[in-house]
Amino acid sequence: MEPFSQQFQQRSGERAGERNAAHTPPRFDADFRARLYDLLRWRRDVRRFQRVPLPDGTIERLIGLACLSPSVGLSEPWRFVLVDDPARRAVIRACFETCNKEALEMQDPDRAALYARLKLAGLDDAPVQVSVFADRSTAQGKGLGRLTMPETLDYSVVTAVHTLWLAARAEGIGLGWVSILDPARMAEILDVPQDWIFIGHLCLGYPQKEDDTQVLEREGWEHRHAPEGVVLRR
Amino acid sequence: MEPFSQQFQQRSGERAGERNAAHTPPRFDADFRARLYDLLRWRRDVRRFQRVPLPDGTIERLIGLACLSPSVGLSEPWRFVLVDDPARRAVIRACFETCNKEALEMQDPDRAALYARLKLAGLDDAPVQVSVFADRSTAQGKGLGRLTMPETLDYSVVTAVHTLWLAARAEGIGLGWVSILDPARMAEILDVPQDWIFIGHLCLGYPQKEDDTQVLEREGWEHRHAPEGVVLRR
Repeated sequence: MEPFSQQFQQRSGERAGERNAAHTPPRFDADFRARLYDLLRWRRDVRRFQRVPLPDGTIERLIGLACLSPSVGLSEPWRFVLVDDPARRAVIRACFETCNKEALEMQDPDRAALYARLKLAGLDDAPVQVSVFADRSTAQGKGLGRLTMPETLDYSVVTAVHTLWLAARAEGIGLGWVSILDPARMAEILDVPQDWIFIGHLCLGYPQKEDDTQVLEREGWEHRHAPEGVVLRR
Repeated sequence: MEPFSQQFQQRSGERAGERNAAHTPPRFDADFRARLYDLLRWRRDVRRFQRVPLPDGTIERLIGLACLSPSVGLSEPWRFVLVDDPARRAVIRACFETCNKEALEMQDPDRAALYARLKLAGLDDAPVQVSVFADRSTAQGKGLGRLTMPETLDYSVVTAVHTLWLAARAEGIGLGWVSILDPARMAEILDVPQDWIFIGHLCLGYPQKEDDTQVLEREGWEHRHAPEGVVLRR
């Protein structure tokens, strides 16, 4: 694996080249938008991964793109923890199993079997695992925009996860967001600073197959509803 | 303005056409990705809008795209409140002014002048204003994935806002996210159900100009940092 800093340098190099055209705002045409809508439609929460590793530098490059996301007051509070250590991965898996068992007990008995069958975690197969945190103590941004809503720091990190998700999908890489975890325990397992809030644990890798419907929809768990129902006028 | 339901029907019609090709996963090429990165780089938090209205049906179509976003357990907890009533807009503006004044008092005196100069809200000019909420009480998704982290419902709504932002930018429409507001007061002003959590207030319209740098960066408030600093290995 090439040195970490070099991976980011390559990315910076790419950006430097682009900077020449940086002052001409891009025009996006109907063709691009049609592909963008495809990307939105075909983004999936992937749970079944091939065990093939991603090419060197891929996750660093995707994180670089995620860092282009919006953040409150330009605070950039996203923190990415690349989890490679097998021992830590095993403890995270155990944390998932405990939480998943509790979640199972909360479900109606007739749904529990279905729930158990849904493969909810790619924790065993995904070659790349990234835990994402929000640094609630960051001075960056000088507090702008977050006095009444400090949770906007967490929201900024969520947009970074979403960007990473779309950028990954655009190169055929799947992402699964695992939320059946204990946030305090995750911070402990990964030994991160005290003010970091756990946002989610991401599994990345090449998907076993590319689905056009959501796994929960396919398995009869839930279906998408029409947008009309979620709009009010005031 | 055409009837609301018809606007969504148009969108459904579009989707029906696409469904023919729905089972062939799209391949995204380097060209598309380059444009996608342009979109990420040129997304801006827009504060200065032209007072020109958006074409009829635009916001409904953008909301339809936002509804393609990921949500925990397919709960789709996003709720969009289109705020057109001038009286309510005025009360929201007043709410912003109160919160902004408090925020100003929290800043170092030498930064306060700069802070005051930054036009933080497009509340006066933006032709479209949408308040976005998360329905914490939704039964949809049957609680899946959110037992240990109920905040993932809010996070789902944040991804929908981010999708709306990108989709808007892809057609030359700017969006500004206003967070200097009191969440409880916003729920009150807009008379929404009790379990709805306020996520953010969005201003949309055609931008006065398209900037290649973030307004806070341009004004010397804050600058982007290199991605290396936000990555740990464990």
